[in-house]
Amino acid sequence: MSKVGIIMGSKSDLPVMQDAIDILKEFGIAVEVDIVSAHRTPDKLFDYGSHAHNRGIAVIIAGAGGAAHLPGMVASLSPLPVIGVPVKSRNSIDGWDSVLSILQMPGGVPVATVALDGAKNAGILAAQILGSSNNDILNKIVAYKENLKAKVHDSAKDLK
Amino acid sequence: MSKVGIIMGSKSDLPVMQDAIDILKEFGIAVEVDIVSAHRTPDKLFDYGSHAHNRGIAVIIAGAGGAAHLPGMVASLSPLPVIGVPVKSRNSIDGWDSVLSILQMPGGVPVATVALDGAKNAGILAAQILGSSNNDILNKIVAYKENLKAKVHDSAKDLK
Amino acid sequence: MSKVGIIMGSKSDLPVMQDAIDILKEFGIAVEVDIVSAHRTPDKLFDYGSHAHNRGIAVIIAGAGGAAHLPGMVASLSPLPVIGVPVKSRNSIDGWDSVLSILQMPGGVPVATVALDGAKNAGILAAQILGSSNNDILNKIVAYKENLKAKVHDSAKDLK
Amino acid sequence: MSKVGIIMGSKSDLPVMQDAIDILKEFGIAVEVDIVSAHRTPDKLFDYGSHAHNRGIAVIIAGAGGAAHLPGMVASLSPLPVIGVPVKSRNSIDGWDSVLSILQMPGGVPVATVALDGAKNAGILAAQILGSSNNDILNKIVAYKENLKAKVHDSAKDLK
Amino acid sequence: MSKVGIIMGSKSDLPVMQDAIDILKEFGIAVEVDIVSAHRTPDKLFDYGSHAHNRGIAVIIAGAGGAAHLPGMVASLSPLPVIGVPVKSRNSIDGWDSVLSILQMPGGVPVATVALDGAKNAGILAAQILGSSNNDILNKIVAYKENLKAKVHDSAKDLK
Amino acid sequence: MSKVGIIMGSKSDLPVMQDAIDILKEFGIAVEVDIVSAHRTPDKLFDYGSHAHNRGIAVIIAGAGGAAHLPGMVASLSPLPVIGVPVKSRNSIDGWDSVLSILQMPGGVPVATVALDGAKNAGILAAQILGSSNNDILNKIVAYKENLKAKVHDSAKDLK
Amino acid sequence: MSKVGIIMGSKSDLPVMQDAIDILKEFGIAVEVDIVSAHRTPDKLFDYGSHAHNRGIAVIIAGAGGAAHLPGMVASLSPLPVIGVPVKSRNSIDGWDSVLSILQMPGGVPVATVALDGAKNAGILAAQILGSSNNDILNKIVAYKENLKAKVHDSAKDLK
Amino acid sequence: MSKVGIIMGSKSDLPVMQDAIDILKEFGIAVEVDIVSAHRTPDKLFDYGSHAHNRGIAVIIAGAGGAAHLPGMVASLSPLPVIGVPVKSRNSIDGWDSVLSILQMPGGVPVATVALDGAKNAGILAAQILGSSNNDILNKIVAYKENLKAKVHDSAKDLK
Repeated sequence: MSKVGIIMGSKSDLPVMQDAIDILKEFGIAVEVDIVSAHRTPDKLFDYGSHAHNRGIAVIIAGAGGAAHLPGMVASLSPLPVIGVPVKSRNSIDGWDSVLSILQMPGGVPVATVALDGAKNAGILAAQILGSSNNDILNKIVAYKENLKAKVHDSAKDLK
Repeated sequence: MSKVGIIMGSKSDLPVMQDAIDILKEFGIAVEVDIVSAHRTPDKLFDYGSHAHNRGIAVIIAGAGGAAHLPGMVASLSPLPVIGVPVKSRNSIDGWDSVLSILQMPGGVPVATVALDGAKNAGILAAQILGSSNNDILNKIVAYKENLKAKVHDSAKDLK
Repeated sequence: MSKVGIIMGSKSDLPVMQDAIDILKEFGIAVEVDIVSAHRTPDKLFDYGSHAHNRGIAVIIAGAGGAAHLPGMVASLSPLPVIGVPVKSRNSIDGWDSVLSILQMPGGVPVATVALDGAKNAGILAAQILGSSNNDILNKIVAYKENLKAKVHDSAKDLK
Repeated sequence: MSKVGIIMGSKSDLPVMQDAIDILKEFGIAVEVDIVSAHRTPDKLFDYGSHAHNRGIAVIIAGAGGAAHLPGMVASLSPLPVIGVPVKSRNSIDGWDSVLSILQMPGGVPVATVALDGAKNAGILAAQILGSSNNDILNKIVAYKENLKAKVHDSAKDLK
Repeated sequence: MSKVGIIMGSKSDLPVMQDAIDILKEFGIAVEVDIVSAHRTPDKLFDYGSHAHNRGIAVIIAGAGGAAHLPGMVASLSPLPVIGVPVKSRNSIDGWDSVLSILQMPGGVPVATVALDGAKNAGILAAQILGSSNNDILNKIVAYKENLKAKVHDSAKDLK
Repeated sequence: MSKVGIIMGSKSDLPVMQDAIDILKEFGIAVEVDIVSAHRTPDKLFDYGSHAHNRGIAVIIAGAGGAAHLPGMVASLSPLPVIGVPVKSRNSIDGWDSVLSILQMPGGVPVATVALDGAKNAGILAAQILGSSNNDILNKIVAYKENLKAKVHDSAKDLK
Repeated sequence: MSKVGIIMGSKSDLPVMQDAIDILKEFGIAVEVDIVSAHRTPDKLFDYGSHAHNRGIAVIIAGAGGAAHLPGMVASLSPLPVIGVPVKSRNSIDGWDSVLSILQMPGGVPVATVALDGAKNAGILAAQILGSSNNDILNKIVAYKENLKAKVHDSAKDLK
Repeated sequence: MSKVGIIMGSKSDLPVMQDAIDILKEFGIAVEVDIVSAHRTPDKLFDYGSHAHNRGIAVIIAGAGGAAHLPGMVASLSPLPVIGVPVKSRNSIDGWDSVLSILQMPGGVPVATVALDGAKNAGILAAQILGSSNNDILNKIVAYKENLKAKVHDSAKDLK
């Protein structure tokens, strides 16, 4: 079955990226997690981006902070859909650097960008991508959305 | 076969959104184009978002400018992957409003955001999403990327 | 008598939105508080926005953070004046996302936006709206402003 | 009958502010237009803000650019609801100065801020404020929204 | 002898504004401190701005945060040089609102703006203004600058 | 009699800085205009800043764009009040670089910053500084402000 | 003798990057110009970055716009000093994306960033880097700076 | 042998700038550290910038915060390559002031700007500049990059 590849530029991104791992496991989708640094391990980046689609990965989630080149460079190398998670790292200028260096890709090489530190949504989006051709997963998304709704109704009741 | 649904908040967004239509046609992927305004036709939005996945649409591309709620609201209603295109409309504050109101979705409801006015990339991303479960389309993406490469090599030769 | 409807996207917005509830109670104006999430309970949003004016609500206050679509979507559905409170939520980019996605509404569908986390002012503005056709409330506003003035004069005396 | 007072800091704001005048006339609501500069005619500002509510004005719309103090200063002086229109004037820094100096009012003195150059929405909001206690006007708002909807449906048909 | 008038919008601005008071005392220049709120005590603002130059004040320092109208409104009313101190108040959007609503005054009504929370520099600037026609004060400025220099030379020695 | 020294970083700043020259001439105040580049003529900057106060200059106006160091460096060298004019030069990032590199001076060395391209206000501020110890000039400022007021009243009449 | 390698992401960057070529030729320094796209020719990027230092290149200048990954990725691959030129490309958000995605490199992999569209300065910086170990070039820099100075003195004379 | 000169505007910048000192020592490169304030010791700045290249310094690293003029002013005075480190000082507006006042230098006078608080990268860049004409240092850079890579591979193993 198809897997989601989750990569991040540094181990320090893991607390943010864990949300993507957790939600995908909740959906019963297999994940493969690795650290790939665009700037410190360019050869691993090259290898990862060039071959991911040949070994069962269907969607890639890439998280990075500051001048965040990992998502865009993987998107340059892979034909798969790449989801970018801008991470608000320690020296980031309020997250703007991460957001803009992932979002503003040139024509021809998209990155599906989610909110700052939005790894949970990256996981859900990966599930939706798999779900667009898999009814089991699509139904799980539908159920997940029903559950979100129910929680809001519950907290509205609590308020009253 | 699966279709891509392309919607926009206003006819004035068409010159930007046309790039998505064109590139998808280039990939031989069927598109269905409509105008759905979150703020002026909320009932059509509701209907569109609730039923798109039941009539053969596999991915939705939604473009809007200013306080751009269309992509996020469709994502709220549909289990499908939704790609958001921030449009730099006439009264936009340099595009920041469009970008932030599409990108910064809360946990649970992702929008796959592309660059400001990046409708072409939205189209390619939609193709990649279909391609993640369809080898024909995946191969077209690989070929498309080869072609991009060839054009750069040509312009490099021209330079010398 | 007319009521003010106060809604928010999540229970986590309550500490900010409480200021609106408190000041309206201080003015003796009835409030009805609820949680309505544009992204997680779109059907409740639809129902709320479409019918609020039929059950005695004269002004709506809506607070939300991040890509904050609640105020604009309620304004899309209701003929009533809608006051939007941008909330600086946890993952907000310094509040800019909340501000711009509430403020920059397209022509035809206004939201009366107040300052970031400015729920108290949203409450006062709601009272002013009711006061524009109700002399009792108008006089309370006049008295409230006199009281603000007196407090500044007192703190100026303390300084000397 | 109640009137809407429309003021602006300079004659150069008129091309933007005309949209508020036009839409209110469309709704059949009386308007009174004047130029009041917070920085060049502070005495007129004082007089205007202090007495508007005594001579039949129910809502004030104030437009200004740059360090835009007119809306906030009128709100300081008047118990009426004040709608602020940030104008993108010639020397404005992309409109940010106008937006922030109108929106970010301190607790106690709200300004109902609309989008940059959003005078049309200021007019509609003023109508909604009057409509919250006047069924004739409320019905005109409902009809106006129906008309907006119809126009979108028409342009969607054109597209196909 | 000439005095410097120091005003602030709220007692909560005093911790920042104290720096202006302290440095002026260090220069032996008389100060008169008061709380004047543009939004809560507009009449006091009017009185202060209109008469300050008639009672021995030669320079005005005005500090305020958020939508900071006090410096500009005093400048509108007084022929004296007005120094504005943008204060980073609690609900300020990172100080940008304070800075822009003080700095971006329209042609005809300048405010001499200093750095965010830069009350010390406001005090020095007031001394320089007095010093431009008073040799005693000018010489104190020269000595102050020599002292700044000496401290840097000392800390450079410490480093080695 | 005291003079105002006006300097700018490049001849290309003259169209903006001319407004300061013109308004000071209107007030009958002597000006001395020169080009001093912090980055290309650092020795001239040094000489200018160190000696201006010894040859009859009472106030310095310095205009520059981009990484605008001229106002701050002159303020570092001279005990006189220095007014900084941020110029929106060709390669400036929307003027933010000019504004921030002039405004955000460290404690000890103030620059009286005016609005982006606000050379006219720089001239008026220089006149106000001279006026704070010279009744003739003070009266001209009072008259100037009366004239501003009259023009607004005239344009208000035109409107009606 | 050492050469400067100049690369850019697209032929559309040439009008900006030409300034670097011209100024280096003026200094008599050999340049080698090529188009290398991080996103469209990742293999060429890899090859270029890995081998430039082996074939006589001593400094690399890389220009790119939007999510500009070329300078950082070359810096990741090459031990040479890399100068990054943020280009304000057509779809850039006012240049902020280019600036931040080049400047904010993580610890370990610096890029020497110059101003937006600052290719001329990139060329001068490259010359200074060569000049730091080559007295002929150093002397040319000294002469160049003298010439800049002379031009300012001339334009100052013209002004008088 | 060539030395790197490291200067900073204030002792309070030392905790940030220490990273440059440490990494250069790690590379075995001699450093000379001093405090030079553009605004408080302009004469020392002049002396430093004019003579550094005559006493064995080959590269200058200058760190400063707020309206950070030190790097640009040293670059104005010295023919050497100058690396600027924007420091996020206490009163900085989120670092934007430091970044823009160092980065946006006018044509003719470059500063090689690194990331906000990026002193470590400034040190590495200085080593790369020396390494561009010195094989020993170049080899150390190559080894340093290998070590960065090894650490990522180790942390990737830890993850699994």
